[in-house]
Amino acid sequence: MLFGVLIVSVLGLAIAGILAREVVADKTADPKRAEVALAIREGAQAFLKRQNTTIVLLALAVAAIVAGANGYAHGGAAAVRTGLAFVLGAGCSVLSGYVGMWVSIRANLRTAEAAARSGIGKACQVALRGGAVSGIMVVSLSLLGVGTLFLSYGGMASEALAKQAPFDMVAFGFGASFVALFAQLGGGIYTKAADVGADLVGKVESGIPEDDPRNPAVIADLVGDNVGDCAGRGADLFESTAAENIGAMILGVALWPAFGLNGILFPLVMRAVGLIASILGIYMVPAKDVENPMSLLNRGYLISSLLSTVGLGISTKLLLGNVNGVASDAWMWFFGCGIIGILCAWAFVLITQYYTESQYRPVKSIVESCKTGPATNIITGMAVGMECVALPAVTLVLAIMGSHWLGEQSQIPHGGLYGTAIATMGMLATCAYILAMDTFGPITDNAGGIVEMSGTGHNIRKVTDNLDSVGNTTKAITKGYAIGSAGLAAFLLFSAYMDEVTHLLRATGRLAADASFGSVDITKVGVFSGGLLGAALVFLFSSLAIRAVGRCAQTVIQAVREQFKAHPGIMAGTEKPDYAACVDIVTRGALVEMILPGCLAVAAPIVVGLVLRAEAVAAMLMVGTITGILVASFLNNSGGAWDNAKKAIESGLLGGKGSDAHKAAVVGDTVGDPFKDTAGPSIHVLIKLLATVTLVFAPLFV
Amino acid sequence: MLFGVLIVSVLGLAIAGILAREVVADKTADPKRAEVALAIREGAQAFLKRQNTTIVLLALAVAAIVAGANGYAHGGAAAVRTGLAFVLGAGCSVLSGYVGMWVSIRANLRTAEAAARSGIGKACQVALRGGAVSGIMVVSLSLLGVGTLFLSYGGMASEALAKQAPFDMVAFGFGASFVALFAQLGGGIYTKAADVGADLVGKVESGIPEDDPRNPAVIADLVGDNVGDCAGRGADLFESTAAENIGAMILGVALWPAFGLNGILFPLVMRAVGLIASILGIYMVPAKDVENPMSLLNRGYLISSLLSTVGLGISTKLLLGNVNGVASDAWMWFFGCGIIGILCAWAFVLITQYYTESQYRPVKSIVESCKTGPATNIITGMAVGMECVALPAVTLVLAIMGSHWLGEQSQIPHGGLYGTAIATMGMLATCAYILAMDTFGPITDNAGGIVEMSGTGHNIRKVTDNLDSVGNTTKAITKGYAIGSAGLAAFLLFSAYMDEVTHLLRATGRLAADASFGSVDITKVGVFSGGLLGAALVFLFSSLAIRAVGRCAQTVIQAVREQFKAHPGIMAGTEKPDYAACVDIVTRGALVEMILPGCLAVAAPIVVGLVLRAEAVAAMLMVGTITGILVASFLNNSGGAWDNAKKAIESGLLGGKGSDAHKAAVVGDTVGDPFKDTAGPSIHVLIKLLATVTLVFAPLFV
Repeated sequence: MLFGVLIVSVLGLAIAGILAREVVADKTADPKRAEVALAIREGAQAFLKRQNTTIVLLALAVAAIVAGANGYAHGGAAAVRTGLAFVLGAGCSVLSGYVGMWVSIRANLRTAEAAARSGIGKACQVALRGGAVSGIMVVSLSLLGVGTLFLSYGGMASEALAKQAPFDMVAFGFGASFVALFAQLGGGIYTKAADVGADLVGKVESGIPEDDPRNPAVIADLVGDNVGDCAGRGADLFESTAAENIGAMILGVALWPAFGLNGILFPLVMRAVGLIASILGIYMVPAKDVENPMSLLNRGYLISSLLSTVGLGISTKLLLGNVNGVASDAWMWFFGCGIIGILCAWAFVLITQYYTESQYRPVKSIVESCKTGPATNIITGMAVGMECVALPAVTLVLAIMGSHWLGEQSQIPHGGLYGTAIATMGMLATCAYILAMDTFGPITDNAGGIVEMSGTGHNIRKVTDNLDSVGNTTKAITKGYAIGSAGLAAFLLFSAYMDEVTHLLRATGRLAADASFGSVDITKVGVFSGGLLGAALVFLFSSLAIRAVGRCAQTVIQAVREQFKAHPGIMAGTEKPDYAACVDIVTRGALVEMILPGCLAVAAPIVVGLVLRAEAVAAMLMVGTITGILVASFLNNSGGAWDNAKKAIESGLLGGKGSDAHKAAVVGDTVGDPFKDTAGPSIHVLIKLLATVTLVFAPLFV
Repeated sequence: MLFGVLIVSVLGLAIAGILAREVVADKTADPKRAEVALAIREGAQAFLKRQNTTIVLLALAVAAIVAGANGYAHGGAAAVRTGLAFVLGAGCSVLSGYVGMWVSIRANLRTAEAAARSGIGKACQVALRGGAVSGIMVVSLSLLGVGTLFLSYGGMASEALAKQAPFDMVAFGFGASFVALFAQLGGGIYTKAADVGADLVGKVESGIPEDDPRNPAVIADLVGDNVGDCAGRGADLFESTAAENIGAMILGVALWPAFGLNGILFPLVMRAVGLIASILGIYMVPAKDVENPMSLLNRGYLISSLLSTVGLGISTKLLLGNVNGVASDAWMWFFGCGIIGILCAWAFVLITQYYTESQYRPVKSIVESCKTGPATNIITGMAVGMECVALPAVTLVLAIMGSHWLGEQSQIPHGGLYGTAIATMGMLATCAYILAMDTFGPITDNAGGIVEMSGTGHNIRKVTDNLDSVGNTTKAITKGYAIGSAGLAAFLLFSAYMDEVTHLLRATGRLAADASFGSVDITKVGVFSGGLLGAALVFLFSSLAIRAVGRCAQTVIQAVREQFKAHPGIMAGTEKPDYAACVDIVTRGALVEMILPGCLAVAAPIVVGLVLRAEAVAAMLMVGTITGILVASFLNNSGGAWDNAKKAIESGLLGGKGSDAHKAAVVGDTVGDPFKDTAGPSIHVLIKLLATVTLVFAPLFV
């Protein structure tokens, strides 16, 4: 069974390779556009190279600490196992981010060319397939990494090793989320500092349009789309899938009496099935010239979902069809749990669309409020953002309670918890497709920028503008989906933490072999305090991320002003601005600014765990997760809604571009930028990091 | 002992009466100023009358439900007891709000007159004493109500009744918080809808200054200060002190073996001592003409704190000096807990000042960000708001854990929990003084408005402007203090809830007489769901409150525009605008808008309790409280910081009034208005309401 999974993951990598070749094969391009694309490529690569250097250094330091902590608790062999797992997880996470970006900084030019030569259908397909490289690659790498680790830790050799291996693998998840945190923070700060800086100094101060080649910060802005949305989100979803796989395998250990090895391997099989379904869905999106390409993407996603459902049914029957070696109907309950997960994914997609698309009430109310100026625009956007957390919370409650109840009906011990795990797997089944749609966003955004900057045609810009607005929707959807799956996976990871602590206490003889660590009782003073600190951490972390953007943007503004002053020819269009200088300034700024929030996120749970111990840190994790889900939804959706309200006005409402309403809308959009692209997505990673860091350092807390 | 408490409370009422007479005795006033004051008075009274009618009707309906629920669980006698307690609590809460406003709408004119005739020292004293009427009255009423109820439920008659009475009194707290919620919501929506509406249509659209008599909404704005800040906050702090007293008495029941009746009465005695200390502190603020009157107020507060500390030491020694009838040193540990509470109050005062006053880094950074326009101003303000939750959270953790630890050292069973209760009492000891400073704010604000509108002198306006800026600081301090004490009291109220459930389970034979309900384990699916819903409730509630302001402000803007159009003489200054029409429109709007968030807050915990049961609703309460503390701090402090950043620019920074930086700052100030004066303060009440509603409806959840 495991070998089947490994084969699928290798096949996935091969398909990603084929898609990548296909996308970048055509080397012919308009020279003006190629020149712009080259500048973006160079900037992005320079940033990623320096960012990865920083991250690798940080990761090596943490690897030593992780290995040391585990060595202290369990001896030298454990130190090597966890240290290696951490390094492997961190390495794969770096690679996922890198590959995502490698393709997107090439697919952007291809999309622009396709838009110029063949029209919207072909351009849409190129952008999606470019995005798919990243999506397929991330899921395949995660499967391959986890599968290989399980195999090499002897998971297939004996029952004892199979039950031990998932616990030894938690450092893989921590490595992945550690890298993802810094990648998302650094990329998120970069992209929005460049964006806000370029907008303020260009559009507002100098009155030149967006993506105008006279703006020295414009290349930095386009680079930002790639490093933030592609590289950051790639690492983010890599760690999501990895952490969730390992957490589900840990829960699978508890079901050994019923399902044996199958219970542990089921998460990997389910992920492989979802990967195949996603690949098929991606290939079924045709190159058709339609009014709204979103409908094509939606149809592909529907196909992926349906195929996943079928695959889910088959795999539950095959792997969980026998209980204690006897054929049983229990698998049907678990199939139901998986369906809940798939429905939950759809619910999050639809809720996000409702709150961020301009045809529905929330964005309409924001547009309306722009009539009375920027203040009312901000107030209304804040109200929309704070409102929009309610439906996701109710959805999560229904999904968690529903899948727990269904799982319990199977009459298998721990069936309820395993049910919530299977719901999470169902939700994440279509992950590769969602990620492809996400990377679609920056690719089309870049394609538009390339066309604009190279000045090669108003008609092509119309095509890319259409694709760009689709990309905005898909980016918003991914964020909703990512936070929803983080919420669902959180419950899984709590349970894994509780199992890990039980495991540790039993191993050290402080708990009888049949007893459990049990409860996290927030009526206890210390535990309540842990919860309070967890919630406060989310706010403080968000604040640091948002402030970092502001500070970094100031340096961009300063640099651009200096260029305009020293070289008056730039504004006249006779002199070429020094794009590389701006890229360099943002790069340095973002890398410095990511350190503080990143280290806070890693250090806070460890400090709380050391001082207040295991139960308090569990409360920190759980209440921090609850707060994180809500604050992230608030930030993501308010940002998305402001963005689309501005777009709605630009499309002609309330006097269109240049009107007072538009000016008010631009303020909202600018405020929303660091919300939705820096702080919000970073909180996704923060939630998962809290889970993996507590899992890995649990030996120090008990 | 109880009689002493009752005597102090009656004396307190008498002193409040004397102060009120003193403030309103002088009837001579400049006729122009008197005319403006009269318009404010009429508007405020009209609003409060209609608001109270609505609230009384709602309260009667809820009283019937509360009585019914308790009758269902415990029979007819319990139904009558709880129903009566609810009505009494609700009545006192209405009265507290009413009296606070009655005085403030008279003290405003007196303050203006004092500023005109005697200068800043006298004006400051008049405003403080006017505010003190409300502060002393609220605390006295709360003492009198709780004390009388305890007496009439037979608390002094027998041990069994003394142990039962605090549980029967929880409906008093619920009645108080029910009224407070609607008072704060209605008043908060009113004040900010009028403010935002008046500003947008006056300052922004028509270019006339603040408080200009040509603006038809200006009286509504001045009325708003009274109904929001005085009436709303009066009811808010009444319910805080009442709920906290009852919660602490319930904990006192558990300490009966050690302290007997003294353990139950201690909270009341401590409150009486704090009341005396506050009254003395208020009387010691002299009518001295100084540069910064804040220093006088601070000195008075210091005196109150020191006197409270001395009183605390004496009362712990007297009441808790004997354990099991034998002299013991245990009281010293509890004295320590009380000191922690007093220090905690100071910490919140200082933290709030740091985040909202213009000489410190946070506001300075906001001022700086105004250089680059409204968007960066909002972003920086949001970052400051999200940052500012960290220190309060750490302070609360230290206070709760510290007082719990000290309490445990007393070696008395449940001593740790009782220690946290005494810390809460210490923090709330100076409540009357703080509330006096709070009501000082709207009184001075109104005095400034009266001087401006009556056009009676530029020099007087300087005096009132100075006082007004002091008032802004004291208002911010109260909010910090209120949320801090809510956080500390929350832990007390959780414990009371756990005791209540234990009590119910024992009474119905579902728990052995010596067993406890025990834990709230958030690893359980339902309990985690309860927590998630509690946190989401805070966000949704805030959203509804903020949106209500926006909607209600729109109606004001519409009405003013129509007046300007129909009567061109208004702008020319030849025609008097119809102030009453605007007052009427805001009144109707605010009363309609307060219903939905108010009912949501009451209904949500009941629904969750009925569906997910007692443990889940406890998690809802606790996680909701944690989230509430953080979101309220975020809203209060960001709003306060924006306000003071604007004031700093108006005082001459970055080009002063009319500069681009000032325009940017105005946007931030407007956004902050509904944050700090509607949503934030309403969340304080929401937290307490969650606690009291779960306490009262506990019989339905077990």
